Amino acid sequence: MTQPPKLIDCPIGIKATGLRRERDSMGDIDVPADHYWGAQTQRSLVHFSIGRDHMPIEVCHAYGIVKKAAALVNAADGRLPRWKADAICRAADEVAGGALDSEFPLFVWQTGSGTQTNMNVNEVIANRAIQLLGGVLGSKTPVHPNDDVNMGQSSNDSFPTAMHVATLLELDDRLMPRVEELIAALRAKAEEWHDVVKIGRTHLQDAVPLTVGQEWSGWACQLEDALDAVKAARGGVLQLAAGGTAVGTGLNAPPGFSRAIAQQIAALTGRAFVTAPNKFAALGGLDAMVRVSAALRGVAVALMKIANDMRWLGSGPRCGLGELHLPENEPGSSIMPGKVNPTQCEAMVMICTQVMGNDATVAFAGSQGQLDLNVMRPVIVANVIHAIRILADGCHNFRVFSVEGTRLNLKRIRQYVEGSVMLVTALSPEIGYDNASAIAHRAMEQDITLREAALASGLVDGATFDRLVNPMAMVGHGVGGA
Amino acid sequence: MTQPPKLIDCPIGIKATGLRRERDSMGDIDVPADHYWGAQTQRSLVHFSIGRDHMPIEVCHAYGIVKKAAALVNAADGRLPRWKADAICRAADEVAGGALDSEFPLFVWQTGSGTQTNMNVNEVIANRAIQLLGGVLGSKTPVHPNDDVNMGQSSNDSFPTAMHVATLLELDDRLMPRVEELIAALRAKAEEWHDVVKIGRTHLQDAVPLTVGQEWSGWACQLEDALDAVKAARGGVLQLAAGGTAVGTGLNAPPGFSRAIAQQIAALTGRAFVTAPNKFAALGGLDAMVRVSAALRGVAVALMKIANDMRWLGSGPRCGLGELHLPENEPGSSIMPGKVNPTQCEAMVMICTQVMGNDATVAFAGSQGQLDLNVMRPVIVANVIHAIRILADGCHNFRVFSVEGTRLNLKRIRQYVEGSVMLVTALSPEIGYDNASAIAHRAMEQDITLREAALASGLVDGATFDRLVNPMAMVGHGVGGA
Amino acid sequence: MTQPPKLIDCPIGIKATGLRRERDSMGDIDVPADHYWGAQTQRSLVHFSIGRDHMPIEVCHAYGIVKKAAALVNAADGRLPRWKADAICRAADEVAGGALDSEFPLFVWQTGSGTQTNMNVNEVIANRAIQLLGGVLGSKTPVHPNDDVNMGQSSNDSFPTAMHVATLLELDDRLMPRVEELIAALRAKAEEWHDVVKIGRTHLQDAVPLTVGQEWSGWACQLEDALDAVKAARGGVLQLAAGGTAVGTGLNAPPGFSRAIAQQIAALTGRAFVTAPNKFAALGGLDAMVRVSAALRGVAVALMKIANDMRWLGSGPRCGLGELHLPENEPGSSIMPGKVNPTQCEAMVMICTQVMGNDATVAFAGSQGQLDLNVMRPVIVANVIHAIRILADGCHNFRVFSVEGTRLNLKRIRQYVEGSVMLVTALSPEIGYDNASAIAHRAMEQDITLREAALASGLVDGATFDRLVNPMAMVGHGVGGA
Amino acid sequence: MTQPPKLIDCPIGIKATGLRRERDSMGDIDVPADHYWGAQTQRSLVHFSIGRDHMPIEVCHAYGIVKKAAALVNAADGRLPRWKADAICRAADEVAGGALDSEFPLFVWQTGSGTQTNMNVNEVIANRAIQLLGGVLGSKTPVHPNDDVNMGQSSNDSFPTAMHVATLLELDDRLMPRVEELIAALRAKAEEWHDVVKIGRTHLQDAVPLTVGQEWSGWACQLEDALDAVKAARGGVLQLAAGGTAVGTGLNAPPGFSRAIAQQIAALTGRAFVTAPNKFAALGGLDAMVRVSAALRGVAVALMKIANDMRWLGSGPRCGLGELHLPENEPGSSIMPGKVNPTQCEAMVMICTQVMGNDATVAFAGSQGQLDLNVMRPVIVANVIHAIRILADGCHNFRVFSVEGTRLNLKRIRQYVEGSVMLVTALSPEIGYDNASAIAHRAMEQDITLREAALASGLVDGATFDRLVNPMAMVGHGVGGA
Repeated sequence: MTQPPKLIDCPIGIKATGLRRERDSMGDIDVPADHYWGAQTQRSLVHFSIGRDHMPIEVCHAYGIVKKAAALVNAADGRLPRWKADAICRAADEVAGGALDSEFPLFVWQTGSGTQTNMNVNEVIANRAIQLLGGVLGSKTPVHPNDDVNMGQSSNDSFPTAMHVATLLELDDRLMPRVEELIAALRAKAEEWHDVVKIGRTHLQDAVPLTVGQEWSGWACQLEDALDAVKAARGGVLQLAAGGTAVGTGLNAPPGFSRAIAQQIAALTGRAFVTAPNKFAALGGLDAMVRVSAALRGVAVALMKIANDMRWLGSGPRCGLGELHLPENEPGSSIMPGKVNPTQCEAMVMICTQVMGNDATVAFAGSQGQLDLNVMRPVIVANVIHAIRILADGCHNFRVFSVEGTRLNLKRIRQYVEGSVMLVTALSPEIGYDNASAIAHRAMEQDITLREAALASGLVDGATFDRLVNPMAMVGHGVGGA
Repeated sequence: MTQPPKLIDCPIGIKATGLRRERDSMGDIDVPADHYWGAQTQRSLVHFSIGRDHMPIEVCHAYGIVKKAAALVNAADGRLPRWKADAICRAADEVAGGALDSEFPLFVWQTGSGTQTNMNVNEVIANRAIQLLGGVLGSKTPVHPNDDVNMGQSSNDSFPTAMHVATLLELDDRLMPRVEELIAALRAKAEEWHDVVKIGRTHLQDAVPLTVGQEWSGWACQLEDALDAVKAARGGVLQLAAGGTAVGTGLNAPPGFSRAIAQQIAALTGRAFVTAPNKFAALGGLDAMVRVSAALRGVAVALMKIANDMRWLGSGPRCGLGELHLPENEPGSSIMPGKVNPTQCEAMVMICTQVMGNDATVAFAGSQGQLDLNVMRPVIVANVIHAIRILADGCHNFRVFSVEGTRLNLKRIRQYVEGSVMLVTALSPEIGYDNASAIAHRAMEQDITLREAALASGLVDGATFDRLVNPMAMVGHGVGGA
Repeated sequence: MTQPPKLIDCPIGIKATGLRRERDSMGDIDVPADHYWGAQTQRSLVHFSIGRDHMPIEVCHAYGIVKKAAALVNAADGRLPRWKADAICRAADEVAGGALDSEFPLFVWQTGSGTQTNMNVNEVIANRAIQLLGGVLGSKTPVHPNDDVNMGQSSNDSFPTAMHVATLLELDDRLMPRVEELIAALRAKAEEWHDVVKIGRTHLQDAVPLTVGQEWSGWACQLEDALDAVKAARGGVLQLAAGGTAVGTGLNAPPGFSRAIAQQIAALTGRAFVTAPNKFAALGGLDAMVRVSAALRGVAVALMKIANDMRWLGSGPRCGLGELHLPENEPGSSIMPGKVNPTQCEAMVMICTQVMGNDATVAFAGSQGQLDLNVMRPVIVANVIHAIRILADGCHNFRVFSVEGTRLNLKRIRQYVEGSVMLVTALSPEIGYDNASAIAHRAMEQDITLREAALASGLVDGATFDRLVNPMAMVGHGVGGA
Repeated sequence: MTQPPKLIDCPIGIKATGLRRERDSMGDIDVPADHYWGAQTQRSLVHFSIGRDHMPIEVCHAYGIVKKAAALVNAADGRLPRWKADAICRAADEVAGGALDSEFPLFVWQTGSGTQTNMNVNEVIANRAIQLLGGVLGSKTPVHPNDDVNMGQSSNDSFPTAMHVATLLELDDRLMPRVEELIAALRAKAEEWHDVVKIGRTHLQDAVPLTVGQEWSGWACQLEDALDAVKAARGGVLQLAAGGTAVGTGLNAPPGFSRAIAQQIAALTGRAFVTAPNKFAALGGLDAMVRVSAALRGVAVALMKIANDMRWLGSGPRCGLGELHLPENEPGSSIMPGKVNPTQCEAMVMICTQVMGNDATVAFAGSQGQLDLNVMRPVIVANVIHAIRILADGCHNFRVFSVEGTRLNLKRIRQYVEGSVMLVTALSPEIGYDNASAIAHRAMEQDITLREAALASGLVDGATFDRLVNPMAMVGHGVGGA
């Protein structure tokens, strides 16, 4: 053909019903005529319809980017005709943009290399490109799923590339903003309440006072540190396996392909992707994903503490700690009128336990690489993407529906500070630990205030007591301790 | 009304568009007019649209059974008019049967008691019953979601009841048959190959021989023991919390309600459900679910070993152990012609890692009960139901697409037995451990057969060797050892 | 020798200094002259001095029982001279009784089959038997570590046998009594306080009342159910691998050996040990241990809830829930006079997290069997024995130093019940949910008692209120709910 | 006293027998007269003798550094007389140096704040300082455990400080060097064998070739990346809680104490310790420890893969993959002469499962902070220090006794490459995927070499085959892929 075929601007969709015959090296197989996928996708549906867990669509979107990048590199190298590359890029854009989501029906529980999803993507892009070029679906002409769409690639290197791209984009676009917004909300509350003195509790027992702002600053700090660890782990998924092909040697990919495709993916996404320095590690292991998972778990560990603290501090209204009023979003009980529960906190702690379980799966699977391939990829990426999603959404809802609307029960907070015997600590330097201790015990035993017990002891007068036992003076300055 | 309203046999579906005003104790809220759910469901959708994890539909189905059972008990007691009970039962049957699945849009990440799903069920049944009785949707008349559908119940006792019912039915109807079929398939292979002698491998190193049948019998036995543990754990979910209401005391439920509703659920399901002897444990803990999860993990532990063994024994074709030919279901590589991979084994091991992670979540969540309620219910039931599903489907596919079609590479198996130096063990009693050891080392060092080395040692003649080194005689009898 | 050597009644101990030359198939090696162990133990010390984790001594004790049983069976069969068997039995008794504990220096991190510990036991028994028979240590005469002490055994079957025996004895003699005592203590408190009405808390929020006894009964019930699961899992370790020898076929053990040695071990221990029906599963898997571990985790899950509840209910003294007075065992703070902390609860929850981590290790390791052997045995038995030990000791201390001395703060408990707005639930049937709800809100908003709010509403008079809002009537009867 | 007491240079040791009366705020208690510890240590021994897990001695050593640093800061500030500080520093040096190890008998299972170990350290240093100053043991004069040794500190800030110091030193001095040496050993092998072509295996199935050096480089790279993550996590434990005192406010510590003590600890250890920017996070959470644990798990994940690969590649000698000869360190079987097992690999994979379980404990415990304190410290530090130790020792032994002595079975490696059908991939570009595929299938079906099948196909001649099918040309260049 001297004149390359023109790209037809036809909308997505196949006007056909019934079945279409597709073919792969195992032979012929019928596929639904109104879908773009081909033989290998269909075979996977036959053999791997397990549960309800589909390959995260984010992986397919990322694969769209990978396929486009490969086509651009192959075209630039002259290995792939420009008009083919154009059609592939157009279809790949549609995949990446979510316009073809219904074409990715495969399950997580498939071949451990992700080959079936790679072929799913190859087949969909090929048939969509064929359609765009006026060809016959299933003919593999003029765009072949393997020879053209998969050119220079193997599932073994392209699937982990798509895993990394999907994970990074989800971290960047979904998780990190939501965590940052939550941190900001916590910090705002810490600011707002930076001089409200409250009783401290260590071992759940009354302790010396701190401010509400200090307490909230600790939560914000925990979360910030956890986010920093996410950012550190993010670095690992910037390294891409593409160019390693079947076993890491890059067989059947041209020299320079690794670097070029990584640059192309970086350009398409605006992120600093680079080629992985060692392709054997990149195929045999999935350790960067395990590290991301560990960082997600770190966020969960911090959030678990925060959400637990909040619901305890909000417990009551009459028979709990009752320092916080959490927003009342919905009726809490069908049997107890007026009951409102800390449901956002509960959703959050459940999310945290889920993320920790996901992480157990990821670490276990990550350790199970064998020789030149780790074939635990689908389960790993599914659990990581899942964890990111629920953490991100959870942080959003937790912030909007609970944190931002939380108010203080100032009366209760003040009562605790006034009632606490642990303020006796402030008398210690003046009258000695032993005398202070005796006063504390007297207050407890006689169920009187600390002031009453102190005056009754004859060791301090009222003026001295009021000067020394000044909660505001006991909370120090700022958040850095003494 | 002297004449009770008649039940209209109208099909499922609401002919309305736009929004419908519903109301709960928080006030008015608009819901989609073409759905049965009400105010509290809608509020949950607003506050808890987190991720893509929906409450397992099996829980909603089970809730249908629970609601029907409650209505029957309440009607029998005369607390609920028969005609109301009839309408509720009809709607509850539809819920249980799956006809109203699209009415349960809530997420796993909601209130930890499951109240929102309970109210979702109450609202759907109420509105559907109202429709069946010719009433106005959203009017709560003549069937009220709380007063009628939820009569004698709290989420606190009904949700764990639904959890147990759902789990038990999934165990019985989904998991256990699939595991049993897989055991049968393994046993059939063990029978078929009960006298094929093969080399044993301990520490991955060549060892003394056993038969293929013996090896497969071990796998079947592991799985049978794991299934027995599932059956034992199943006993725990036969105990139902219903009748404990809000905190376990049964407040607002009539005397005898616990026993009656358990009997009714038993009758409806044909399973030996009973009322939990201690309702405070049943509400404060979810330990029976944790034990089911542990049992599921036990199945995963066994399957992981089996699937790993199979893919290693099937490794090759030229450069692996190559004793087994696993069925070739799909092309394995886009780059390597003719490559076929043990994909069913891979899916299975991924499933196993998932089940183990789910179990980590369940145990962690199970430990987090607080005072009179464990509010980790949705995450626990979601993970248990998920684990059951993927294990069951996985066992099915693994059996059909891999185990049953596995064939032996008899030539390879024979070569290994003949080549192995470890058969020297049979000479030990005759010529002593030290002489036997020297023969083994000679064979290895000179890369000759054991027979050659033995004859070269001058310690045995050919006839003696052939008499003693008889692999078939070394494999003992049956599976019970000596 | 026509006259068998006589057994000399010499005490344990070797009067020698420096080194003694021992020998195995790898050649000569020097061992400390004052120890009984031989060449293979010494090699293990050279190659596997990793960390500080020694093979649990309970495994060595159990191995003493296994070796004695083997000697008795071998002697009864006439394979082993009676005088040799006598010497072996005497030495094995010393091992089992703990008199030779210093002779088992090996680490957990060794060969995964436990061979090195088996040889450690064989060597120590052989040399001690040689000493008892007047022979030369290290001469392997007249008692040989392999030919005599290890007769009819392989590490592959004897090590898991010792694992099961050790685990079962630890369950029976250490864990189960301690858990039962704790259950009894909880039950005693439940009895004592069976009619003390307290406020319930669900979602940490005030709920309807229950009695202290009911709450404690729930804890006891959780623990009883967990103990039942331990008993069920215990059944698995009653099955012994002995008689499977190297790969499960029983090669080199005489027919009937499996059954005979199991019977002997049963006789020696007074427990219902039996031979495992399938030796290939018994060697290739360690699933019975995984199930024991899961059951231990179940105990931890229940204890975590109980210890957490107790420390929250005991929080205060002024600024917490303060319903319980936990015993004050030691000063809690160097800086805050009079502070006492719920340290026994803290130790217990730490133990629970440890047991859950141990269980993660055990399950993971259990899944990693390969072909005809699981070589994760030492790590599995070490984690199980460890979990049993800390759970048992923890239950003991928790009971003695915390549970038994716990007292109620009746004043606080009564205040909560009186102050709680949730008692409004009792008005619901009389005045309707909506009116009840309005009263509850009025009480909260005006910070007045429920009675005040009810009377102010004009809906009930004082007499009616006092009749209906009767906490004692709201707690039902017993623990089974309605 | 105008003249400060002189420091007597008396050796460690107390010449006394029987008991000594010590005292704390709970009253009198007898302690062993030959030990330095005091009342609170003794009380802990009474109440917390649980299991066999002692507080890691590394924590006590680190505490010695912390106490010395505090004394130096307090002396510089003039709060503590120089002569007292000198005595405390001398005793603290002895603690840090290990000379007083027998004085730290406490268990991991104690108060969750670590207060009892803090008091153990305070008491030992005080009594030793008293001894050095000629005072009476137990008199608390002239050096008081609380007022002097604990000056400006609380357990709440000093224990996590000691945790961080201990962890950092163990990472730096124990783990990281051992991992680096292992990486170096792997790299050396990768260099040595950089041009030995071997068959690749993906999905355990034969794949295209790579070099042995490439394969080993992947292992080294995985481990390097894991080590990088350890270094990143190490940064977290450089931040110290000291100066937060009881709840993070720094009450009773002088201004500037936080910064000063961190600088002092940095100076004493030569590491870049700084004061934690937020003391509320530092006391309420232990997230930096959780991150270290996650990084340790990352090392385990990589090592698990490496050790598993090695033992599989070394499997045989006759019936396995047999590419590697692992060193033979000890006899492998008492029943099978000449059997040698990959025991170092086995120890390593067991270590990895242990580290993963420890990490599960740490993460779980890390999530369980409550309000102003996380009281899971002892279990967290014990598991982290344990994991570091066994990983470090394991890496050392694995390297010395296995990696460095590993040799290649060149004959077997060559046979695989020659026999593999997957080299057909190299014909693909010349004769097409379909023709190549047909040749591969012919070779398998007829059990002939690829060359034979290729020539028989008539599609290539011998010269062409030999030119194209050149394994050395298929392995690319270096480790970065194409």
